[in-house]
Amino acid sequence: MSTNRVDLSQLELFDHHCHGVVARDLDRAEFEELISESSRPATAGTTRFDSQVGFGIRRHCAPLLDLEPFAEPDAYLARRRELGFDEVNRRLMRATGIGTYGIESGHAPGTITEVAETAEVAAAAVHEIVRLERLAEEVATRMHAAGEPASGFAEAIRAEIDTRLESAIGVKSIAAYRCGLDFDPTRPSPVELQDAVETWFAGFDGSWPRLANPAIIRMLLWHAIDRCAAIQLHIGYGDDDVDLHRCNPLLLTRLLRASVDSGARFMLLHCYPFHREAGYLADVFPHVYFDVGLAINYTGSRSEAVIAESLELAPFGKILFSTDAFGAAELYTLGTLLFRRGLSAALDRFIELDDWPVAEASRVADLIGHRNARRAYRLD
Amino acid sequence: MSTNRVDLSQLELFDHHCHGVVARDLDRAEFEELISESSRPATAGTTRFDSQVGFGIRRHCAPLLDLEPFAEPDAYLARRRELGFDEVNRRLMRATGIGTYGIESGHAPGTITEVAETAEVAAAAVHEIVRLERLAEEVATRMHAAGEPASGFAEAIRAEIDTRLESAIGVKSIAAYRCGLDFDPTRPSPVELQDAVETWFAGFDGSWPRLANPAIIRMLLWHAIDRCAAIQLHIGYGDDDVDLHRCNPLLLTRLLRASVDSGARFMLLHCYPFHREAGYLADVFPHVYFDVGLAINYTGSRSEAVIAESLELAPFGKILFSTDAFGAAELYTLGTLLFRRGLSAALDRFIELDDWPVAEASRVADLIGHRNARRAYRLD
Amino acid sequence: MSTNRVDLSQLELFDHHCHGVVARDLDRAEFEELISESSRPATAGTTRFDSQVGFGIRRHCAPLLDLEPFAEPDAYLARRRELGFDEVNRRLMRATGIGTYGIESGHAPGTITEVAETAEVAAAAVHEIVRLERLAEEVATRMHAAGEPASGFAEAIRAEIDTRLESAIGVKSIAAYRCGLDFDPTRPSPVELQDAVETWFAGFDGSWPRLANPAIIRMLLWHAIDRCAAIQLHIGYGDDDVDLHRCNPLLLTRLLRASVDSGARFMLLHCYPFHREAGYLADVFPHVYFDVGLAINYTGSRSEAVIAESLELAPFGKILFSTDAFGAAELYTLGTLLFRRGLSAALDRFIELDDWPVAEASRVADLIGHRNARRAYRLD
Repeated sequence: MSTNRVDLSQLELFDHHCHGVVARDLDRAEFEELISESSRPATAGTTRFDSQVGFGIRRHCAPLLDLEPFAEPDAYLARRRELGFDEVNRRLMRATGIGTYGIESGHAPGTITEVAETAEVAAAAVHEIVRLERLAEEVATRMHAAGEPASGFAEAIRAEIDTRLESAIGVKSIAAYRCGLDFDPTRPSPVELQDAVETWFAGFDGSWPRLANPAIIRMLLWHAIDRCAAIQLHIGYGDDDVDLHRCNPLLLTRLLRASVDSGARFMLLHCYPFHREAGYLADVFPHVYFDVGLAINYTGSRSEAVIAESLELAPFGKILFSTDAFGAAELYTLGTLLFRRGLSAALDRFIELDDWPVAEASRVADLIGHRNARRAYRLD
Repeated sequence: MSTNRVDLSQLELFDHHCHGVVARDLDRAEFEELISESSRPATAGTTRFDSQVGFGIRRHCAPLLDLEPFAEPDAYLARRRELGFDEVNRRLMRATGIGTYGIESGHAPGTITEVAETAEVAAAAVHEIVRLERLAEEVATRMHAAGEPASGFAEAIRAEIDTRLESAIGVKSIAAYRCGLDFDPTRPSPVELQDAVETWFAGFDGSWPRLANPAIIRMLLWHAIDRCAAIQLHIGYGDDDVDLHRCNPLLLTRLLRASVDSGARFMLLHCYPFHREAGYLADVFPHVYFDVGLAINYTGSRSEAVIAESLELAPFGKILFSTDAFGAAELYTLGTLLFRRGLSAALDRFIELDDWPVAEASRVADLIGHRNARRAYRLD
Repeated sequence: MSTNRVDLSQLELFDHHCHGVVARDLDRAEFEELISESSRPATAGTTRFDSQVGFGIRRHCAPLLDLEPFAEPDAYLARRRELGFDEVNRRLMRATGIGTYGIESGHAPGTITEVAETAEVAAAAVHEIVRLERLAEEVATRMHAAGEPASGFAEAIRAEIDTRLESAIGVKSIAAYRCGLDFDPTRPSPVELQDAVETWFAGFDGSWPRLANPAIIRMLLWHAIDRCAAIQLHIGYGDDDVDLHRCNPLLLTRLLRASVDSGARFMLLHCYPFHREAGYLADVFPHVYFDVGLAINYTGSRSEAVIAESLELAPFGKILFSTDAFGAAELYTLGTLLFRRGLSAALDRFIELDDWPVAEASRVADLIGHRNARRAYRLD
């Protein structure tokens, strides 16, 4: 049988969407917070370790910290602190075999390692992805502090995006969280945009100015489209401040139709439980790509089913790999291991069922593992 | 291999949502009506037995009535009548190994056994779940018959809920059927509520006063929230008077967000085909639980796939077991047998794939089978 | 084991929804266009052959053209041209074992074989399905050319439908593409209808008058309902001019409820990724049938999962078979082969899991393969 299976243990990986890791030791409550998308502690009488991701960490990460598989959570965390965060992060990230990272730098900066630091920990190549909403908030904050008028914001943020795109390989939008994906897909008119910016600026009160106005977010997206950028979009499953029924990627249909000839590319992230819908969009729109990152970690022993479902309508040249790891380096280890395993299982099944030549199956794995990302981000 | 599998044949079960059984003999048309969610007879030229649930009954229930597996439907029903409903109900319910029932008493009362009677047939412990809409209709009918004004309704139904919650372990709402889940999640204002009650009362014509007004239903839900009750909600698949696209549990997101610190708990029932969405809600909201009851019976030989899909995002401490059996005792037998089997299959797969310790897999089964329900309904 | 499996290699098939094939030789770009639902060429750097359907063609169709499995695309297309379209179409269609075709004749007529011609190529019985929107466009064009007033349109199209239904076995609507399935399910009033027709006619400019007005489409559907017709509806996945989130079959709930006693039957086509929702509708509404055609071809090595998911809620007497092949005869070959294989796999699993008698499993296959269609289209 061994000759009729793919071996993806050495598959080159380009993790096109992920984040830094926490660079300090963690207590149990802090660690549990990092292994769930909920903003709330686990229900009384339960623990976040009693979940697919929790079991996955105990099974697959404990041995990397010299523990037996399925070490108890307290023992795991004690050993984690004993080794120290730096050693743990290095071990866990370097076990992944990821060659290239696309690090999204705008989520909770300050609490996790920065891009260059993450590269050093991981001992790998990194590229930056710029979060549009965060960047806009930074620019607005700076302008407001300097007493600059709202009327200059649109030009300022556009210039800032252009500057950042000189080094960053793409942008990311969390429109899903901020206004849902059912927004008007057209460019905002100058008047609509200016009204929105004025209102936003007028509300500044010293706290962080959370950008949720759809007109401003649409302007950011359309500017990225005009720049032929690679645009990552949060889709589907995420934190509890998302209205998941407004995160169905099909809600983007008109925006995708309007931008199909623009030169921009859209990377739909995570997508669970709408990954079949994402596969459809990746099929019919030449500028749409997608992954099932995040869901792989959080569905754990069930992730092979999710990965298999991602291999239906989408052309093999349009599927990407990501971990969406954030904070806990375990999410890199586990997301990579489960991806290699789930993709192997799916391809082996296709080999068994339809006699796919192993070389063809391996070629498909190469596409999904790294080649599609290189092409889509124009790094070739 | 046998030492690397869970044995759930004796798993203790708490069926947290089910109903009484019919206490008379049934002809074929009556029986077929009980084994489908449709309010209509089977299409001409077809039979309800030609379905997953029909095949499941012939396979698994026929032997309990001393027939060969896959007895023909007519032979099955003849034997059922020969033994008599009482013997049949006892055999089928007692074969389940369910230790505790949470019986929802407000669906078609009068046609099925009452709570105490069901307990006797099943030889098990029972708790009552009160259907809010039914209770409201009863109170309104009583008030109207007594010539009491609509202005007293809100206080009367609140008092009645409180009284019933002295013995019942929770309430159930069928808002999904009556107004869809896309209702305004806020408390109704006193004026809005009073208007709604006046209109409802004014329409009384002697027939049963079906409650469908969202303002009144919202009041019932918010009163249950204020009482820190366990609140069962019909979600997803059901009778043909449901608009299934308005039964997606994600439509409850704002209500769940608004009630997260209330002390109330929400049990999302059935959920098919939105069980992955329900798993997400159970992950991010500490007061949300869910089951895939009903769907297990009706997907039969495919139920292991549905059960496996319910074990993705949701923490293991938030998944419940129910049969949603109604009328036909076969639905208890089959719902239990398929649940034990599907959960075993999923856990055995996790053991095989990720070396889950059998003790850990059994602990997860215990949580889902009964411990989560005990904790969530505060029976510990 | 062989005695405990179904053998569907000779299963009689009624392909109740499909189209003609292209009767000329094809270059690679033309062929790639036929093996995707996208209206766009493949993304630069990729090929439509790198997909489930592409791999399926290389695996299963190449040998029918005397090539090795997994011949390279260029070699495949060279051989295809060498044999010539006529020989290729005959080989591929006759390899399917389809006994009866229901050919929808209104999609891109002129580019593919007509009904009678397809019958000759396939050497099988054919029935016609009339596309309502196309027929309406033809009638309107004719009337407009003849200078006839818009006021006569409703009567003219109704008469035309009646005439066509003397020989055709059903109608098809692409309301999903033209106005989405979230249309008002009531009959249009005469005034509303007449206004819509006047507006439509007034816009005629010599180009093909694309019908997208919901009032006119509703009239067409209601006329078909009044005629007790078999009505095929495009559901779910399709070309990129569909808004897929408006193609969920649940959006038809009110129309289905309103027509349940009409004598009309609804055949929900394709349905992916909403096939579980379609299964629910087929369960609760006696006049609803569905298939997962189209998706079978395009999910290829994953199609057995989709087929298995179609065998959940729906009664076995309500599931149909189709290929939805269009243009490329490969889609007939592949759609049939994958259907036989996926249905076998599902039934064999049920035999293994629940001891389904092989005769019962074969009976279910017969229902799905052809008997349900014969009954539903009233050909018995």
